[in-house]
Amino acid sequence: MPTTNEHLKEAFSGESQANQKYRAFAKQAEKEGFTNIAKLFRTTAEAERIHAEGHLKALDMIANTADNLQAAIDGETYEFTEMYPPMLEQALSDDHKAKRMFKFAVDAEEVHAQIYSKALEAVKAGKDMDVSDFYLCPICGYIELGSAPDECPVCGAKSKVFCQIG
Amino acid sequence: MPTTNEHLKEAFSGESQANQKYRAFAKQAEKEGFTNIAKLFRTTAEAERIHAEGHLKALDMIANTADNLQAAIDGETYEFTEMYPPMLEQALSDDHKAKRMFKFAVDAEEVHAQIYSKALEAVKAGKDMDVSDFYLCPICGYIELGSAPDECPVCGAKSKVFCQIG
Ligand SMILES: [Fe+2]
Ligand SMILES: [Fe+2]
Ligand SMILES: [Fe+2]
Ligand SMILES: [Fe+2]
Ligand SMILES: [Fe+2]
Ligand SMILES: [Fe+2]
Repeated sequence: MPTTNEHLKEAFSGESQANQKYRAFAKQAEKEGFTNIAKLFRTTAEAERIHAEGHLKALDMIANTADNLQAAIDGETYEFTEMYPPMLEQALSDDHKAKRMFKFAVDAEEVHAQIYSKALEAVKAGKDMDVSDFYLCPICGYIELGSAPDECPVCGAKSKVFCQIG
Repeated sequence: MPTTNEHLKEAFSGESQANQKYRAFAKQAEKEGFTNIAKLFRTTAEAERIHAEGHLKALDMIANTADNLQAAIDGETYEFTEMYPPMLEQALSDDHKAKRMFKFAVDAEEVHAQIYSKALEAVKAGKDMDVSDFYLCPICGYIELGSAPDECPVCGAKSKVFCQIG
């Protein structure tokens, strides 16, 4: 019999995945011209985010920002050192289409870990980061500080596709 | 040795959860006055959403809207009939704080399934839903069509807290 903490982890995982699925389904509905159904998917995605956040709080997994950054660094490090390398290797040997995003992710996560480490240094020094512009590559998830690069070092996308998240 | 499809499911789960964590961490950073770090968390959350979407595509889990709605109905039905009831029961017997969101979720998911069923009827009749206003309760994830209720039937929140997702 699982404990309530184990239940919370399972429910958090389920709600997080439902949120992502509904956001992707909303885009598909939009493409097919179902504008209202797309809005329904986005609204329900937000409902699942509320459930996910509630479970995360009940797990006491939202700490202070220094601890949150450390948890984020640990998660990113696990992904780029342990999780993704064997996944990429196998997808390459299968020649599975998964290899593309596995490769982008393994490279992007390493950069995420580095940037979170800079953020943690700032917090340990009692201040916010001094950078306020974060440029995201919408193809691979690479992030650059300050200004967009001429070309994405992970996927090769051009400067003009980079975006900022408000 | 897991298959690439099993790897994709694991990676989709991990990315979906990272997205939710970073969004929650962003709110916490904002509360502590770390405006730039909050923006970094939101930007990285979006990077993880890109990874999650890529994995979902590689899993061929984004179908046409009729099939997506059926998958959504199946997921919601699993949650309110099988997943949440024993979780809620145990959290109640533990008197664990998880009981609050488990109760909200089990009730909200049943409503989500009903609304998705209406959407599927419309799609099967070759049209979009005729409703374009979806009111979300930001406390429990309940959704009402057309206009906000006087009081949320799931959590009791007042009409004025209901919001619409664009
Ligand atoms: Fe949910
Ligand atoms: Fe990452
Ligand atoms: Fe890129
Ligand atoms: Fe990622
Ligand atoms: Fe739901
Ligand atoms: Fe509610």
